Amino acid sequence: MFVLGIDPGLSRCGYGVVEAHAGGRPRAAAAGVLTTAPAAPLPARLAELQREVRQLLAEWRPEVVAVERVYFQTNVRTAMAVGQASGVVMAEAVNAGCEVAQYGPNEVKQAVAGWGGAGKDEIERMVQRLLGIDQRLRPLDAADAVALALCHLAHARLRRAVAR
Amino acid sequence: MFVLGIDPGLSRCGYGVVEAHAGGRPRAAAAGVLTTAPAAPLPARLAELQREVRQLLAEWRPEVVAVERVYFQTNVRTAMAVGQASGVVMAEAVNAGCEVAQYGPNEVKQAVAGWGGAGKDEIERMVQRLLGIDQRLRPLDAADAVALALCHLAHARLRRAVAR
Repeated sequence: MFVLGIDPGLSRCGYGVVEAHAGGRPRAAAAGVLTTAPAAPLPARLAELQREVRQLLAEWRPEVVAVERVYFQTNVRTAMAVGQASGVVMAEAVNAGCEVAQYGPNEVKQAVAGWGGAGKDEIERMVQRLLGIDQRLRPLDAADAVALALCHLAHARLRRAVAR
Repeated sequence: MFVLGIDPGLSRCGYGVVEAHAGGRPRAAAAGVLTTAPAAPLPARLAELQREVRQLLAEWRPEVVAVERVYFQTNVRTAMAVGQASGVVMAEAVNAGCEVAQYGPNEVKQAVAGWGGAGKDEIERMVQRLLGIDQRLRPLDAADAVALALCHLAHARLRRAVAR
């Protein structure tokens, strides 16, 4: 089954598709960045993002979409646009039949690197180790989205363990 | 032609459909509030709103959707949810082929009552006068959405006059 991680944004929306294997190592199936034209009006950009996300969902049919939780404090100037983008992504995902999970940045660091204060490099090395790859995932928004998907898999594993 | 005004929100999303007549008085064709279940998770609520907005667009086929611009300062606790809701509405409207216009609260007051500092009662009376009706539009979110649609018509009239 596929998990789609989404690092929401209007100018750059990172995505990462991770394939989970029962008992095996997860595999990064795809990763990239959805962009919208910065010069276009906001409604047109949100509509463009909606179409791109819809295409991604149709192509990969993920069971779960893991979306980064948006907070105000990060950057007030862009926070509203990021929030609007995340709203578009989540509505689209649920209406495509996906389960949607939200994780904050610290939950991702905790799940991937073992502690919430981990730095970018540490996260990156752990993502490589978890996927069993040598190459660096680029661009960074795509790497963050893959980390989100891995975070969801770690949480899901934990929930299964607790349920047993 | 129809203009759909939307006062975005997750718990309560006001809408008002106004029919414009060339040279005549605009008519309120429909007004109401879209609600989503407060107990449901955020992604499910956004998806519910998306479906309801889609239905509204399919039913009225408005040429323009006028959406209230969302600011942070109003209420930090709910601003993000309102922003996410507005994102869903705008993406959906553009992808349904509508023109989307955003207006801030003061622009609506300015357009409807003649000045940006107008109070709720003043706005309400002016909306009644513009529509030529005696009854009060209720609930308030629906009245606000009708005012948004009227604001767009006033702006469109002005733009046409300037273009002439």
